[in-house]
Amino acid sequence: MNTFTKEVMSVGEMASGAKLTVPVYSFKSKKATGPNVYIQANMHGAEVQGNAVIFQLLELLKNCSLNANITLVPYANPVACNHKNGEYTLGRFDPITGVNWNRMYHFDQSVIEPFVKQNIDAPQEDIKQKFEQLLLDEVDQKLDHNTWGLTTGQRIAYQLQRLAHQADIVLDLHTGPISSKHLYCPEYVKKSAEFFNIEHTIFIPNEFDGAMDEATFCPWWSLQQAFQSLGRNFIMGQGCFKKESFTVELGSQEQIDLEVAKQDAQSILTYLQYQDVIGGEEYQPEKITRYGCYLKDYKALYSPMGGMVDYLAEFGKPLSAGEPLARILRMDNYGDGEALHYVSLQQPVIPILHFASASVNQGTELYKVFCNYFEL
Amino acid sequence: MNTFTKEVMSVGEMASGAKLTVPVYSFKSKKATGPNVYIQANMHGAEVQGNAVIFQLLELLKNCSLNANITLVPYANPVACNHKNGEYTLGRFDPITGVNWNRMYHFDQSVIEPFVKQNIDAPQEDIKQKFEQLLLDEVDQKLDHNTWGLTTGQRIAYQLQRLAHQADIVLDLHTGPISSKHLYCPEYVKKSAEFFNIEHTIFIPNEFDGAMDEATFCPWWSLQQAFQSLGRNFIMGQGCFKKESFTVELGSQEQIDLEVAKQDAQSILTYLQYQDVIGGEEYQPEKITRYGCYLKDYKALYSPMGGMVDYLAEFGKPLSAGEPLARILRMDNYGDGEALHYVSLQQPVIPILHFASASVNQGTELYKVFCNYFEL
Amino acid sequence: MNTFTKEVMSVGEMASGAKLTVPVYSFKSKKATGPNVYIQANMHGAEVQGNAVIFQLLELLKNCSLNANITLVPYANPVACNHKNGEYTLGRFDPITGVNWNRMYHFDQSVIEPFVKQNIDAPQEDIKQKFEQLLLDEVDQKLDHNTWGLTTGQRIAYQLQRLAHQADIVLDLHTGPISSKHLYCPEYVKKSAEFFNIEHTIFIPNEFDGAMDEATFCPWWSLQQAFQSLGRNFIMGQGCFKKESFTVELGSQEQIDLEVAKQDAQSILTYLQYQDVIGGEEYQPEKITRYGCYLKDYKALYSPMGGMVDYLAEFGKPLSAGEPLARILRMDNYGDGEALHYVSLQQPVIPILHFASASVNQGTELYKVFCNYFEL
Amino acid sequence: MNTFTKEVMSVGEMASGAKLTVPVYSFKSKKATGPNVYIQANMHGAEVQGNAVIFQLLELLKNCSLNANITLVPYANPVACNHKNGEYTLGRFDPITGVNWNRMYHFDQSVIEPFVKQNIDAPQEDIKQKFEQLLLDEVDQKLDHNTWGLTTGQRIAYQLQRLAHQADIVLDLHTGPISSKHLYCPEYVKKSAEFFNIEHTIFIPNEFDGAMDEATFCPWWSLQQAFQSLGRNFIMGQGCFKKESFTVELGSQEQIDLEVAKQDAQSILTYLQYQDVIGGEEYQPEKITRYGCYLKDYKALYSPMGGMVDYLAEFGKPLSAGEPLARILRMDNYGDGEALHYVSLQQPVIPILHFASASVNQGTELYKVFCNYFEL
Repeated sequence: MNTFTKEVMSVGEMASGAKLTVPVYSFKSKKATGPNVYIQANMHGAEVQGNAVIFQLLELLKNCSLNANITLVPYANPVACNHKNGEYTLGRFDPITGVNWNRMYHFDQSVIEPFVKQNIDAPQEDIKQKFEQLLLDEVDQKLDHNTWGLTTGQRIAYQLQRLAHQADIVLDLHTGPISSKHLYCPEYVKKSAEFFNIEHTIFIPNEFDGAMDEATFCPWWSLQQAFQSLGRNFIMGQGCFKKESFTVELGSQEQIDLEVAKQDAQSILTYLQYQDVIGGEEYQPEKITRYGCYLKDYKALYSPMGGMVDYLAEFGKPLSAGEPLARILRMDNYGDGEALHYVSLQQPVIPILHFASASVNQGTELYKVFCNYFEL
Repeated sequence: MNTFTKEVMSVGEMASGAKLTVPVYSFKSKKATGPNVYIQANMHGAEVQGNAVIFQLLELLKNCSLNANITLVPYANPVACNHKNGEYTLGRFDPITGVNWNRMYHFDQSVIEPFVKQNIDAPQEDIKQKFEQLLLDEVDQKLDHNTWGLTTGQRIAYQLQRLAHQADIVLDLHTGPISSKHLYCPEYVKKSAEFFNIEHTIFIPNEFDGAMDEATFCPWWSLQQAFQSLGRNFIMGQGCFKKESFTVELGSQEQIDLEVAKQDAQSILTYLQYQDVIGGEEYQPEKITRYGCYLKDYKALYSPMGGMVDYLAEFGKPLSAGEPLARILRMDNYGDGEALHYVSLQQPVIPILHFASASVNQGTELYKVFCNYFEL
Repeated sequence: MNTFTKEVMSVGEMASGAKLTVPVYSFKSKKATGPNVYIQANMHGAEVQGNAVIFQLLELLKNCSLNANITLVPYANPVACNHKNGEYTLGRFDPITGVNWNRMYHFDQSVIEPFVKQNIDAPQEDIKQKFEQLLLDEVDQKLDHNTWGLTTGQRIAYQLQRLAHQADIVLDLHTGPISSKHLYCPEYVKKSAEFFNIEHTIFIPNEFDGAMDEATFCPWWSLQQAFQSLGRNFIMGQGCFKKESFTVELGSQEQIDLEVAKQDAQSILTYLQYQDVIGGEEYQPEKITRYGCYLKDYKALYSPMGGMVDYLAEFGKPLSAGEPLARILRMDNYGDGEALHYVSLQQPVIPILHFASASVNQGTELYKVFCNYFEL
Repeated sequence: MNTFTKEVMSVGEMASGAKLTVPVYSFKSKKATGPNVYIQANMHGAEVQGNAVIFQLLELLKNCSLNANITLVPYANPVACNHKNGEYTLGRFDPITGVNWNRMYHFDQSVIEPFVKQNIDAPQEDIKQKFEQLLLDEVDQKLDHNTWGLTTGQRIAYQLQRLAHQADIVLDLHTGPISSKHLYCPEYVKKSAEFFNIEHTIFIPNEFDGAMDEATFCPWWSLQQAFQSLGRNFIMGQGCFKKESFTVELGSQEQIDLEVAKQDAQSILTYLQYQDVIGGEEYQPEKITRYGCYLKDYKALYSPMGGMVDYLAEFGKPLSAGEPLARILRMDNYGDGEALHYVSLQQPVIPILHFASASVNQGTELYKVFCNYFEL
């Protein structure tokens, strides 16, 4: 049976001096032939199901054949996951500043060019090692040598990023509000999406907007492109350039379900087995219809009016143009106006998630949908 | 087809001067042989399904045979139903003061004794009329002649109460957090509970704690008891002393479902037909097993620890002593403590509702359950 | 130099498992001739200045002549003091339930009568000791033997109360929103109010509403009255029946000022010296005009309209009838209505505090004022 | 006496259907020789003093000699200014999404190049008129022809922007949290800063980050640069290219003071008189020492620890290197650690504002300060 170590990482302090800590679980492989893995959960406070998935992963990994190191971090953001407003968890953004907790990771594009020039002829293994160190140094610099300090979210994000940069494969476990399962996958490793038991995948380009997945793959993708522009080619996601990172959306927020978590853990192990992180053939991808779309085609629909929404469209199934997504109740109009307003789109879409509450303002995000989707 | 009138009632002003209004729908009966009815919804901001039920009631009432006047008020509390914090509606209490919106209705017990002394020999019809007027005067006095002003919630509550005091039957439509349907029914009209298509009823005593249902029946129940103590007997809930009020809990908050709302509207019409508010025999109560318990046996279970809850117990079904209600995930204990803690009770209960989120503090209300329940 | 001990008391757990603790500082007196003292601060989250006062008390007490034990508890409620919403601290009530943190202490009036009957002839010292034990047992029972659990706030309150019940003098340090200093003092120890350097005192009756000060003195006051009704007289606040408790309102919330805190610490030491808790004559009450009023005359004025308030009335100074307390800006009315509305009262008052923000809803508490005030 | 017209602009709807409106006041000049002006206030909910300034401006403008049209919009964002959480106004960001209300204005840089190419030889007046129309068309397009809808904040921002784009001078009235007065001024019109009675000015470059001031001047500054790069020179801020916009920070949030507002109105009129918007010589800038710094030197200092802050540094006065800005109380460390931590900087600064509450998390923004400041 594999054993793991457990450490406790300090990530912040509250007004009373209360220290906020995060548990870090690590499996070390003796073989160390496969790519190393980093998995975290609950960066957004209400998105708790990933903690249950990490529970099930820990249970299952004890009995796997480990070819690589795996680090698992539940409760990644204790400020967010402990912040209640009424019965719910106000956890998508810092309650003081409004900044999205998953937009505070660091990547400074300007480090690429000098690095490439300096290492244009270096062996691949050296490049990998040096660039990894450069990314770690960048984060350490931010954490340890900053006259003006860091925001609450940066301090958390950079500490997590320090762990992530030491891995080759990074999985950031999130959920939607009320949502089907879906996956964010970088365009350069489309094939990997087929090894998760998740029906819907969004393929994302090389654009850094502060999220964990981007903070992990954008530096390497950019590095590859920079070398390429100078005539030296690597293939991203292969060999020592295997750097893959995914945001895994596990369903709806505010819920823990340990049975479903076990299925999700198995889905992740299927991908990890494909990547040789674990040995054997126990985990085979489910035969399901997988749909994909590009990030630019993953669209949010904002409510055309204030009101109370009866969400009608089923998740994950193609919806024809003109079919209603929702109807909005407006009792203030009953008797002298339109008490029910139907919302539809003039193109076929696949609804993926909807807003967490029936009550919406004009302009609240109602649905997110796949447009121009395709089968994988 | 019956027609209704629609009025708009001003209930408050926000900092920008924005006026908050509530629509009031009224059907007037030409016959006026039955008891008058008042129905409101959405006093708590997140409990929106009652608005959809009022929508369906309005639709159905157009074609009923009306024996009494019916007043319907959706969106009863616009301050609450418009108050978002993150994606959810922070609507159980005034966001400034924390006071529960449904604890601000008025009843001053001290008016009973002098009234009874003065009217000890009056005819029943006079008593009814005068006492109703007294209750209305009390509320008007509060609304119109108060040097020190009223709280935001009192101003709303008293205006709604002014409408409710003019009716004989009052239905206050609420929901639980994540919940089965259930009914709060005064002990003196137990029979009425059997005409709603609701499986679970809590029978409540003559104790005023500020809620709409209590504010409606406690004055009359207290009046009856005061007359009784002086040797004059009425039977509450009968004849001109028909005064019934219920809190109807329609299921879970933050949701609108117009199909389910139609069933709930039919359930309410079944009760109203039984009370002769509408004629005919169209609506017959469903043959379902109905359970009841007394308010003192409707118990809240508070979480013994902080953590993330996998709610296990099914709503509405008797649960044996010792069977788990929930298991609480504590990843911080994984590896060196108890990562899963099971919660159970040492007596049989019927789970009715649970907390709206998986994430709980030590001391958060986990479940509400029937103890010492019985079949109706 | 006196030394103190420091203990850490666990009062709760958050969803991530984070433990919430409270530091408890204790000075033990060798003489132990005076009444023991308990002082706490920051039960309401935004009311932080009491922590600074405890800092200064600890500094000063090191060099006092101690005649009694003193226990000091800053950060009494870490759930509340760490709860931010935007830049401010949402700390007056439990963010999940809305219940005021200072309304959750325990006192069950029904224990008095049997105790008095059983101890009608007991020596005073025995009565004191046994009744103190009874109160502690009551709280222990709640904390340790409750099938249904405790709310988050009860668990905190009862643990603090366990400390308070072991003292003879209890000071609960609070602040108003934007406020002058004032004191809540039980009616039976009016004289004590003159030993605080605080100009305004509210005298409160023997009515338990869940607050710390009441939870401390109401049991003893009720006990005295019960003995009295059976013909045995004690004088509350004297001899072994010295039980005094105060809520000390230190000014405005959301502020720390260590210089002002030092003055407040000296004010408290003046009272403690008067009570023989500390020896010497170093601390003499300031010669200031002290005003008092009864709790029933400490009135809140609610805003007659929504708008933005220019607070005009100075704190602590008598304001003639008809003089404006505030003017309310209503730009939405500019040009076609009343853009400035003046608020005044038809009786002389002393303004004590006002709302923390210019922006108010109709019905928001604008001011709290003394009516029918008198000089002490 | 000048008269104004008042219109009411609909900017949104809440869940209850409540319509949110904004009053728009307009003075039309018969002469129309000066640059037109647009002034708005209260885009951030807690920043209310600008409404009082607009009140005083309306009062004073009635008796000015008007050379241009002036439009004034108080309560620009009713969603934000009506959103209470506890006693304070949660108004810096959309409570549902966390997005800063003042980062949602529109400017699409890509429109510049084609416009310049097409109008390289056009007369200046034509360029002005056409480009203004282009900016208006862009906003109209967003408002009226968007399949996917707009966010709540975009709908408000774009409607305000439609008014702003019709003016030559734009003033966006804000406040800091607890703050001295200061001014954001584009670098190309430094001279203008000397006509406000405000001691501290931040000079900002041509970078669009979504704020109202940038949304107004960046398009024109970019236009000028694009023409320049093709060899055609205009001078920004002069002639028909007079386009100036400022964010005027009026002091602290959550406060209304009509007397101070009058001074601020006079300060604004001083600038408007300098710009020939109003005639006469009544308003002359105060002789005060004015300090400036560049945006890159306007630095935020984040708290190195959680704790409770005694803010020490005075606003607006140069503070030597090493002098304390604040001391942080950490009672949990009292007795066995550092209970008071002093915060200072290793360079001279001018403190401009500090956080609104004493209670901070590790990483909360403590102060904003001028570095490398200079006298104007």
